[in-house]
Amino acid sequence: MGRWEPNTRERLARAALELFGERGYEQTTVAEIARRAGLTERTYFRHYADKREVLFGGSDVLRKVFATAVAEAPASDAPIDVVAAGLEAVAAVFPGRETARQRQSVVGSHPELQERELIKLATLSAAVTEALHARGVADPTAALAAEAGIAVFKIGYERWIAPAEHRELADLLHASLTELKAVTAGSR
Amino acid sequence: MGRWEPNTRERLARAALELFGERGYEQTTVAEIARRAGLTERTYFRHYADKREVLFGGSDVLRKVFATAVAEAPASDAPIDVVAAGLEAVAAVFPGRETARQRQSVVGSHPELQERELIKLATLSAAVTEALHARGVADPTAALAAEAGIAVFKIGYERWIAPAEHRELADLLHASLTELKAVTAGSR
Repeated sequence: MGRWEPNTRERLARAALELFGERGYEQTTVAEIARRAGLTERTYFRHYADKREVLFGGSDVLRKVFATAVAEAPASDAPIDVVAAGLEAVAAVFPGRETARQRQSVVGSHPELQERELIKLATLSAAVTEALHARGVADPTAALAAEAGIAVFKIGYERWIAPAEHRELADLLHASLTELKAVTAGSR
Repeated sequence: MGRWEPNTRERLARAALELFGERGYEQTTVAEIARRAGLTERTYFRHYADKREVLFGGSDVLRKVFATAVAEAPASDAPIDVVAAGLEAVAAVFPGRETARQRQSVVGSHPELQERELIKLATLSAAVTEALHARGVADPTAALAAEAGIAVFKIGYERWIAPAEHRELADLLHASLTELKAVTAGSR
């Protein structure tokens, strides 16, 4: 397979998840991930800065999809509806639940991976805030709407990957936003 | 001064902020911080695990104050009002704005400090969620109310330390919560 094969990033991510599951995160090297994917270590580092980053390859996509949906929502939409459109767009491109669960079992048991997860979420929040600014939404409304969206994403996503959960991500994000509205409205 | 002097932590934090301001964060060593505070490096490490941690000494206090206020709010209060009581309690114990601004100028320019700030906020959110669980509030309501509270805290705090801002932290937290309610209600 050629070095410019378009799904190189995905192959590396899949190989990494397999190896992390089989041997543990610490016990796996970048060289082993590359080998499992049928690629070289050099190719790995063209796509990911370090061993951690292979678990966060989706976060750029997530950010772009969310920000694009915010930018393209009807001009008359209230900020929270714009954020809801972003969440819907994100749910539509998300990879499979089993992959997400495998990934979570690695991330959840390593503090340095949880740190990076928090950074990615903060970056996502900043990107959504910026996309709202570009629509003419001022702060603090923009920042609060973005933070509300990230909170909904975080909690909806956690519910989605919970054991025995069968509802779809889109439904859980929608339900979580509805619940956030009820919570802030002061319903019990 | 004796080694068990109660304000040792505060002295170290003050010395650290002074030195970070004068020489820069990277250029300052733990030994220098201890010396400036009139203490030994060994004493420093009894109070803070590393150089970063001296900037986050307040986060334990913050967490306890917030969680205690949540625990002690009237049983009839809705979760969002319980969270509002927590924010009020936090505002009442916060140190001065100038110290917070000095601290922010260091944290804001170092990614590894911003990371730790995010971790502290996530820990705060988890503590508030737990305190809500203890009141009998179930998830996802508890987690969403806690996340809403942390978002309000984050944004109210950022506004408070912004240049030329004169309103008090309590007022800015209250205003930010009111604005979050308006945002999620879909007002423009």
